Amino acid sequence: MQAFNLDTAVHARGTGRYSATLAGRWSIPDGPSNGGYLMAIAARAMSDHVDRPHPVSLTCHFVNPGHPGAAEVEVETVRPGGRHATAAARLVQDGTEVVRLLGTFADLTGAAGPTIVNGAPPDLPPLDACSASPPSDDEIIGRFDYRLPPEDLGWRHGAPKGEGRMTAYVGFHGGGAVDAFGLVSIVDAFAPVVFDLGLGPGWAPTIELTVHVRRLPVPGRLRAALTTRFVTDGYHEEDVELWDADGHLVAQARQLALAPRS
Amino acid sequence: MQAFNLDTAVHARGTGRYSATLAGRWSIPDGPSNGGYLMAIAARAMSDHVDRPHPVSLTCHFVNPGHPGAAEVEVETVRPGGRHATAAARLVQDGTEVVRLLGTFADLTGAAGPTIVNGAPPDLPPLDACSASPPSDDEIIGRFDYRLPPEDLGWRHGAPKGEGRMTAYVGFHGGGAVDAFGLVSIVDAFAPVVFDLGLGPGWAPTIELTVHVRRLPVPGRLRAALTTRFVTDGYHEEDVELWDADGHLVAQARQLALAPRS
Repeated sequence: MQAFNLDTAVHARGTGRYSATLAGRWSIPDGPSNGGYLMAIAARAMSDHVDRPHPVSLTCHFVNPGHPGAAEVEVETVRPGGRHATAAARLVQDGTEVVRLLGTFADLTGAAGPTIVNGAPPDLPPLDACSASPPSDDEIIGRFDYRLPPEDLGWRHGAPKGEGRMTAYVGFHGGGAVDAFGLVSIVDAFAPVVFDLGLGPGWAPTIELTVHVRRLPVPGRLRAALTTRFVTDGYHEEDVELWDADGHLVAQARQLALAPRS
Repeated sequence: MQAFNLDTAVHARGTGRYSATLAGRWSIPDGPSNGGYLMAIAARAMSDHVDRPHPVSLTCHFVNPGHPGAAEVEVETVRPGGRHATAAARLVQDGTEVVRLLGTFADLTGAAGPTIVNGAPPDLPPLDACSASPPSDDEIIGRFDYRLPPEDLGWRHGAPKGEGRMTAYVGFHGGGAVDAFGLVSIVDAFAPVVFDLGLGPGWAPTIELTVHVRRLPVPGRLRAALTTRFVTDGYHEEDVELWDADGHLVAQARQLALAPRS
């Protein structure tokens, strides 16, 4: 079984109650669990509870840090729904709430309606011109297969581009398929885009993240575009678009976060 | 007292319980209450309950239509917070849940940190070259003072620009100041931007709306820019930026909505 599916699995423990085990390999070493990883776990419980397979819109507020170990997800149906069902959820560890979520779920395989696209995947150099992240079973940066243009990593050696923009190829190491829950996780699996503005490196706490799953991705590497345009009084938005190998937009996310303390 | 403040007032009825009265003049005639209007009412209750004056990030899922008349808001503290406090809320009418919200609140007057801006207010023609909405005490379109470039209203006579973009000056008729709750309302007070793509006119149901209040506006007319870039299988995002009279970004919103049925 694919590591991501294994590590985000939830087990029903009664109406609206699920247990999960947070794995250590989806965080930075000794750091708190990655926010997108927590969202994926909660989204699986919510999806199961409202019996709709895909998160269409999912919002998460980050309440306390999560850590490897046992967790519970409590789900409440807000609207049982026809096409769209809405649920609220909280993920709790040892009685402490870690994240609170609100989301609407549907079956995206049945989506039909007009399509008008005024945007394109990011223009990335060939794979072999990108910096790769070696696989590792110990931390999040080695679970995902990131390939970034070297200039988007300039911040690592004091040379950020200053544009507030990063691009990447991304997928799971080992090539496992990315489903809707994988998308929910990946939109929060990058270095903060404000690093490209010369802010940080350092912790950029997320207040809130909303992700819209726009389409189920075809197999293959995704392309990601991260942007921030407005850092105001220490707050900034980080926008993430994920595009699939066929060139379709598959997820769109925005988070409100605080700039790293200098 | 300014009509908006009067009509969005909430009254504490016990811990986490507030009463409100939905006014008819913030909807289209005989239509459901405007979503942004409902959000502003709930946000006031949430702000009071967590004792933080400003919504920093507020997400709303639209569960059932709201109508003029009595309503209750039930608020739960998610994190009492230091600088940021988080709350969940539901607005209920006659036992039916209308909207469910999740938000984080703070005192934005104390915000301090880096500011880096890579964007600008929309370029609007002079006021007297714009189409005005006459004041009216009967419906939402007459409560706000909208001034739109005529080409952004081309959809009204079958000539949409086809860009997925609309711009406007906006404020309250009578010139009352717009505060953080006014911003929460205004981001949902426009005609759907997909009309400019030739979709509709018609009802474009919102699934979810998230608004970030980025700064408290100075007095004066706001400038609004509405954009949609991706209509996919009938779903689309609508992005709204509000800028104040000093040229500062004051709110940023995104909603996921369905295209009008043709």
